[in-house]
Amino acid sequence: MPAKDIFHEPFVLALIKDGWIVTADPLTIRILDADLLIDIGAERMVGAERDGQRIAVEIKRFIGKSVVQELKEAAGQFMLYEEALKRVPAHVDRVLLLAVRLPVYVSLFENGIGKILMESHKLRLVVFDSVKEEITQWIPANVTRKS
Amino acid sequence: MPAKDIFHEPFVLALIKDGWIVTADPLTIRILDADLLIDIGAERMVGAERDGQRIAVEIKRFIGKSVVQELKEAAGQFMLYEEALKRVPAHVDRVLLLAVRLPVYVSLFENGIGKILMESHKLRLVVFDSVKEEITQWIPANVTRKS
Repeated sequence: MPAKDIFHEPFVLALIKDGWIVTADPLTIRILDADLLIDIGAERMVGAERDGQRIAVEIKRFIGKSVVQELKEAAGQFMLYEEALKRVPAHVDRVLLLAVRLPVYVSLFENGIGKILMESHKLRLVVFDSVKEEITQWIPANVTRKS
Repeated sequence: MPAKDIFHEPFVLALIKDGWIVTADPLTIRILDADLLIDIGAERMVGAERDGQRIAVEIKRFIGKSVVQELKEAAGQFMLYEEALKRVPAHVDRVLLLAVRLPVYVSLFENGIGKILMESHKLRLVVFDSVKEEITQWIPANVTRKS
């Protein structure tokens, strides 16, 4: 997998159009693992802020491999990063979101197996149109304050 | 990956020694995904019962690949299967657990990055000794009733 995939730039542009200031690209979270500092997040996470609200967004591709497999990875990553963010004073106020493209959202989260994770409110999503470079939906809808 | 890995049999034997009756090996969960029935769980899940309590155990290897990567997959799988179990009347009373070998538990969940998932009570584990074929710990300790 490339360090930054083809959906990274369209998503960042969509965020900027939506009024966000991108403050970290990539955003790295450092946590202590058995007395060793390790970096999680790596090249796929973006940090942004708007009106004093700060977010950390993990951009997921969902292409290739099995969709169920990718969903597991994305959900587990979300769980792990969410706990990691809580433990780092510099990031504790960041709201974590998973960025997914519109067709992925429709097929996987609105109608597919990912629906059970949305119904149980386990994930927060930012849905974007990678062609128009626009944010189409925040889930839950009130996850960010309006600018 | 093989259909059943080398830790499958030792774990099943450990469960039996612990007084459980293995009722499904493999245990499959069928859920509706966009109007298609799909099977999740596949070859790595075991169903067992003891004193009227029923469990579903996903056996995780944690060998090869990156440990953080495997942890993400395991955590996401746990999240997904837990929600799936709630939706299937035949399995709704099953307690889902992740089976991990003792050395994996010590390095990854007791001292390593997996600790943050344990601290936040996101996962339930059954730790086993694959050489002695014995269960060494249930986490949380009260997850199963004593036989």
